[in-house]
Amino acid sequence: MQGLHLTADLRGCDPAQPLMIDLSALQSLCVEAVEAAGLGAVAELFHRFTPAPGEAQSGITGVVLLAESHLAVHTWPELGAVTLDVYACNLGRDNSARVESLMRQLIEAFAPAAAQRQTLRRG
Amino acid sequence: MQGLHLTADLRGCDPAQPLMIDLSALQSLCVEAVEAAGLGAVAELFHRFTPAPGEAQSGITGVVLLAESHLAVHTWPELGAVTLDVYACNLGRDNSARVESLMRQLIEAFAPAAAQRQTLRRG
Repeated sequence: MQGLHLTADLRGCDPAQPLMIDLSALQSLCVEAVEAAGLGAVAELFHRFTPAPGEAQSGITGVVLLAESHLAVHTWPELGAVTLDVYACNLGRDNSARVESLMRQLIEAFAPAAAQRQTLRRG
Repeated sequence: MQGLHLTADLRGCDPAQPLMIDLSALQSLCVEAVEAAGLGAVAELFHRFTPAPGEAQSGITGVVLLAESHLAVHTWPELGAVTLDVYACNLGRDNSARVESLMRQLIEAFAPAAAQRQTLRRG
């Protein structure tokens, strides 16, 4: 259960980009980035919220369950904001570089003006 | 997107208790605790891993997507260990007390010998 958990809170993301508002686009990014990072997706769940009155778009919340732990993402197009979590335990091998790679791919995809990152050592 | 994210890494949990190995028991705990804490579940996904060779039991990984963000849980019965994440943003109201309540319920349910907790301010 010992592992690396990275968080990133993004600001200044283009609210019109598909990743902020299109469930399929966000889900594809996450699943493909997990695979590219060398981590193992076992299941995923994405949910698009109903737009609030007066809002044209709404956010998406989603998770990819990993063999190693999880990836979570929440988008707020009305704020141009995104939060990201990537956590992988190191049972059997050190996944730290894979966690870093996955987080880097996700941040680059959203192209934020600013990213506030935090690092947790778990377990 | 500003909010409170709590993590807890539990050790010394009874590996035979249903919450460690029974998907339905864990899912029920999580959904009921979310409701009791006053947070809003929008969807959930739980996955039970295949037991490793020589192991009788295997762990469960799961998530409850919240209107406010997410709850994630991973159990390792072979280690008597559990990791918990509860994150809720404060859009519209301060959910900090609800996050604390939810985490407290989950930790008490697993009855660990030790809990290593961390607190993140997000957003």
